[in-house]
Amino acid sequence: MKNEFRKDYVLDRWVVIASERAKRPSDFQKRSRGEIDTEKCPFCPGNEHMTPPSFLTFLPSHLGGVTRDVDGERTKDWLVRCIPNLYPAVTPRGRFSVKRESNLHMKSRGVGSHEVIIESPQHNDHPGKASLKQTMLMLKAYLRRLKELSKWDYVSIFRNHGREAGASLSHPHSQIIATPMFPKRISDELLGCLNFLHEHNRCVFCEIADKERLGPRAIFENRSFIAFAPWASIYPFEFWVLPKKHQYTLLQLKKDELRDFAEALKVCFKTLSDVLHDPPYSYGFHTVLNKKNSFFHWHLEVYPKLSIQAGFEKSTEIYINVTPPEVAAKSLREDRSR
Amino acid sequence: MKNEFRKDYVLDRWVVIASERAKRPSDFQKRSRGEIDTEKCPFCPGNEHMTPPSFLTFLPSHLGGVTRDVDGERTKDWLVRCIPNLYPAVTPRGRFSVKRESNLHMKSRGVGSHEVIIESPQHNDHPGKASLKQTMLMLKAYLRRLKELSKWDYVSIFRNHGREAGASLSHPHSQIIATPMFPKRISDELLGCLNFLHEHNRCVFCEIADKERLGPRAIFENRSFIAFAPWASIYPFEFWVLPKKHQYTLLQLKKDELRDFAEALKVCFKTLSDVLHDPPYSYGFHTVLNKKNSFFHWHLEVYPKLSIQAGFEKSTEIYINVTPPEVAAKSLREDRSR
Repeated sequence: MKNEFRKDYVLDRWVVIASERAKRPSDFQKRSRGEIDTEKCPFCPGNEHMTPPSFLTFLPSHLGGVTRDVDGERTKDWLVRCIPNLYPAVTPRGRFSVKRESNLHMKSRGVGSHEVIIESPQHNDHPGKASLKQTMLMLKAYLRRLKELSKWDYVSIFRNHGREAGASLSHPHSQIIATPMFPKRISDELLGCLNFLHEHNRCVFCEIADKERLGPRAIFENRSFIAFAPWASIYPFEFWVLPKKHQYTLLQLKKDELRDFAEALKVCFKTLSDVLHDPPYSYGFHTVLNKKNSFFHWHLEVYPKLSIQAGFEKSTEIYINVTPPEVAAKSLREDRSR
Repeated sequence: MKNEFRKDYVLDRWVVIASERAKRPSDFQKRSRGEIDTEKCPFCPGNEHMTPPSFLTFLPSHLGGVTRDVDGERTKDWLVRCIPNLYPAVTPRGRFSVKRESNLHMKSRGVGSHEVIIESPQHNDHPGKASLKQTMLMLKAYLRRLKELSKWDYVSIFRNHGREAGASLSHPHSQIIATPMFPKRISDELLGCLNFLHEHNRCVFCEIADKERLGPRAIFENRSFIAFAPWASIYPFEFWVLPKKHQYTLLQLKKDELRDFAEALKVCFKTLSDVLHDPPYSYGFHTVLNKKNSFFHWHLEVYPKLSIQAGFEKSTEIYINVTPPEVAAKSLREDRSR
């Protein structure tokens, strides 16, 4: 197979799939994720006083289920804790109002919400090995916060794993940033969805689910979800997890679907870790909140950090990917049969 | 100053300028650039046989000025060599013709040109310390190749410095990739230029040159160029170098302007290296070739690699920059007065 250009399903984005020197898992050096722990991990049980009070805490059911820290106390024996980010990019104070300092300089206060979800009391837990129950609790925390923050224009739920992927602490945690503006990336996806809808009278992601679930880019499938390496992946070993049924927002997830989603995460992240020696990665949910955008189809995008985006990518937004998605999907599928 | 959102001059792109925990130069650890040399550097004089033949070689004038490798020989005593990339992302074979494998899967052969410009015979040279004469030769090589490649839709000239910024060899070199499609990033800039032109009857970059040359984001100015930290910088210590006179393409540079540009590069990269201990960085030219786009204004964008773009940035295209451009510009200005 020669090197080829591929266009993204919905974005005006091109990638060079560099098959001629395709990198397989063994070409990516085994490297330590760069442990980042200070002596005392602020997210470990017993160190709760090192963090701001939690505004949402899940407890074992015999301790009452759901609570929050009050009166300067810190609830112990938790399963999941949601806390404000101690170094927030955005804060809820004030309001979003764009000021024009000149015809070139537009700005607004940095309003929003920046939160941390501590996914587990266990320092070395991870969606690839946690119990389904624990991952479902993490997902339930996502859903509660998403609902609570739905007055904002957008809510981004994301996770960074390993220092090279931007994690500053290794205790398993996700982050949420709610912003007063709709992100460019999501508008571009909405536009792509609308264009496909007008041309083919169908949701493009429903079409993707149908076409990719059995092809050379398929990775995993259960009753409610498929995981696959997207046609025009821009990162080596990039994969997406997509609900098979049309849902515009995560908030439409039913209980059994939540379980299926937790299972898809567990299988995919365990395989990713086995095949590439626990590589650094980031993931981000792409979801909308408002019913007027119900033509959108939420999904999770996972970006392993195995390559560097350099001068060409940064100045053109054309990408070079040295691992064809078919090669990535094949390794991620095959590893499970061992 | 509180954290604030800022919108780019021309792109639909927002950045959080995180002033509350602003990072100054001393906050960025001194770290080695990760030397990457094998025993024998293929770009050093004497090892020319380790590379493909050069199709453009600059020689000292007493040796004849301009030549190329012929008949399997390798010209010695060169000052600058242009060679095909040994591991090209794109190749000139075949033609660009988009095939629809389905309503979801579009692709084309990976046609284009991928070249390397070896900027100097000296292994440790760099635009921040090379003689103006040497840097002018590098720029002349850029211009010759740009002209030669102008049948392509776009020609990207870029440079990666340091392993963390994507350089695989440390001998000073730039790269050129010519593509059969116009990059998304440049179309977005063209659109922004047109919008500003319609609203203000002026080129937005001419306006930027006027407004930023004296303000808190100014870094350097000579007769023909200004360097400044852009208002909505997405990277810490990002800066742009912009011709003061309106020029849509690099190819319009006159000889004295070429000298002024080489001087701007020398001063800015020397300061960047002094202030941040020779940090990794990438740069990329933003230029057009076709006169129909003469409302564009070419410039160079420099992206130091001091931070990691993680799950939030990758899934939203909203950015968080921990060094306000005013702080970056102040350090890059002040260092020179020492």
